Amino acid sequence: MLLLIPGPVTTRPEVRAAMAQDVAPWDNDTRAFYSALKARVLAIAGGREPEYAALPLQGCGHFATEAAIRSFVPAGGRLLVPLTGHYAERMVRLAREAGREVTEVPVSETEPVSPADLAAALAADPASSHVGLVYSETSSGVIHDVAALGAVVRAAGRRLLVDGVSAFGALPLEVSAQPELDAVWFSSNKCLEGLPGVTFTIVRADRLAGAAGGAGSWSFDLADTYANHLRASGVFRFTPPAQILSALAVALDLFDAEGGQPARLARYRANADTLCRSMRAIGLSPTLPADVQGPIIVNIDAPDDPAWALQGFVDRLKARGFLISNFANTAHPSFRVGCIGAVEPRDMCAFAAAVDSALDDMGVRSRAPLRHAA
Amino acid sequence: MLLLIPGPVTTRPEVRAAMAQDVAPWDNDTRAFYSALKARVLAIAGGREPEYAALPLQGCGHFATEAAIRSFVPAGGRLLVPLTGHYAERMVRLAREAGREVTEVPVSETEPVSPADLAAALAADPASSHVGLVYSETSSGVIHDVAALGAVVRAAGRRLLVDGVSAFGALPLEVSAQPELDAVWFSSNKCLEGLPGVTFTIVRADRLAGAAGGAGSWSFDLADTYANHLRASGVFRFTPPAQILSALAVALDLFDAEGGQPARLARYRANADTLCRSMRAIGLSPTLPADVQGPIIVNIDAPDDPAWALQGFVDRLKARGFLISNFANTAHPSFRVGCIGAVEPRDMCAFAAAVDSALDDMGVRSRAPLRHAA
Repeated sequence: MLLLIPGPVTTRPEVRAAMAQDVAPWDNDTRAFYSALKARVLAIAGGREPEYAALPLQGCGHFATEAAIRSFVPAGGRLLVPLTGHYAERMVRLAREAGREVTEVPVSETEPVSPADLAAALAADPASSHVGLVYSETSSGVIHDVAALGAVVRAAGRRLLVDGVSAFGALPLEVSAQPELDAVWFSSNKCLEGLPGVTFTIVRADRLAGAAGGAGSWSFDLADTYANHLRASGVFRFTPPAQILSALAVALDLFDAEGGQPARLARYRANADTLCRSMRAIGLSPTLPADVQGPIIVNIDAPDDPAWALQGFVDRLKARGFLISNFANTAHPSFRVGCIGAVEPRDMCAFAAAVDSALDDMGVRSRAPLRHAA
Repeated sequence: MLLLIPGPVTTRPEVRAAMAQDVAPWDNDTRAFYSALKARVLAIAGGREPEYAALPLQGCGHFATEAAIRSFVPAGGRLLVPLTGHYAERMVRLAREAGREVTEVPVSETEPVSPADLAAALAADPASSHVGLVYSETSSGVIHDVAALGAVVRAAGRRLLVDGVSAFGALPLEVSAQPELDAVWFSSNKCLEGLPGVTFTIVRADRLAGAAGGAGSWSFDLADTYANHLRASGVFRFTPPAQILSALAVALDLFDAEGGQPARLARYRANADTLCRSMRAIGLSPTLPADVQGPIIVNIDAPDDPAWALQGFVDRLKARGFLISNFANTAHPSFRVGCIGAVEPRDMCAFAAAVDSALDDMGVRSRAPLRHAA
């Protein structure tokens, strides 16, 4: 069974096999292993100690988002969020419930955020100390230009927080070239091709030093996590998901062997291109125009046929060995395909054959997009 | 290698083997699997739907502690915590940083909390709506009487929050017999003998209904988690550690096959008794008197010999196939041994032989306890 979802992704058997051992997290050998793992992740982000640090956090990407907001935006402070899609909306909710003010900036969900629009929004909102940006919007599949938007944030004298959850490891990132970037976070189970259960946040260290206690949550206090990192870099404050970290180390070995971020991006791009081409070949339409379609997630418009039903389609694909999401976050009915994980273009060809057969099986005759007919 | 630590514990190979598959958390089959897993955990706690619910949370026990406090003690409200040891201190810190007031009640760390003392503390502290109690103190190894202390809380018209992290599955618990109990939480990697990465909180449902948004943290809002549970019990709000949940299901199969909580307690008690007896047989002294020694964690006094050093001792035990903690939380120097996990009394005998040999190897001649000599 191949998982073609935005994550958890399909992993390689050797990654999963790394979980077969019990681990004592505070053992001295394990501490050294964790220190090395953090350094590897930091290097992928283009950061170096002591200016930057990679701080692990147990749990899921949403937890990392909340931790970054709490740790960098002061209580009562304000964050500006371009509303790029579902995950930007989640960032807004996480910030508000944590007692931070949010300026929501409506933007197109089907185009990258325009640097000029962001500059105008910042000029109109002097109270926001930070911009919160989703690098790769899992809902739409649109990629936003972190470097160009970061330059706007820098010019406005503000700071940037980047949700890199479905981007890191595949899309380019060089934290040391972006001094306005306070933090970027990501999880183990997306483009790094590990299993879910842990996140990492790359932080500008000088902006956390001495700030422990200000997050309004001990669990989510990255300044306290950073102080702990300085005391003993291989020791977690609380019990980590040890097997998930063991698997991540093997996933990083495979990442290196593949050729790192450029090679991974190239494979995902080839996956997405192959998918879009083969969907068109069987009469279906990708939701986004090709020039803004990112390599991570592709939404395909639902066919305009009364026999279409997402769950029935998902079930038929599953019977054919492919798992896709049984929900969508687009304005028009669609189905969502993840192009990340241990999959290759030939898997996308096989997937297209399965889609073709599943639609026939459902009695779907028209494959023109529903949105144009609506 | 056997892990004789308070957790993550030694697990059985079939538990770890359950992690070898990729999982799509929102797949319909997975949803049904998660619903069933929650129901099994709830049944172990003696609870039933709809009065109670088992709510999973990604991450570690500390996260569950913060979530329970945030979700049941109102912002600015007050929690009374008997200072039973290290984990009670952590509960205090988690509560304070989350903006809750705390009344700290000093108690002996080497005896169970006295119901009369708790009654007096509550009478003197009318502002505390809740008592936060650690069932099994991982620092000292003392077990506190949740039923007797709960009766005191009930009589005082207050509510109880129980950190059951190193207790649940082994120590008795019947939530339906304790109407004052708002929540008890625990992790997958202690007495349930799964892997670390997820927690569950058993909640009195009527006390969360309609309360979403009051936790001051979306991530840690159990009322929102409960609302989500009512909407779709098998769907997580955020990506779960899927492989850890797969492993937990197998761990629960083994739990049932062993005979459930009474059988697990009996095995752990036999482990602890065998450990204490065999430590005395080689001249060492358990820290606690036998009548208050719980079956989860045993601290052994460090020997009063200049050749003693905890890390050197830990290293020598590791070379002999046993991993114990390389830190202790007792007033006097000690080493800490976990009696939980997939281990049996005969493992404790083998451990004693390893301790005997390691001490000889270190040149430790006197095995009398250091605290008496200090």
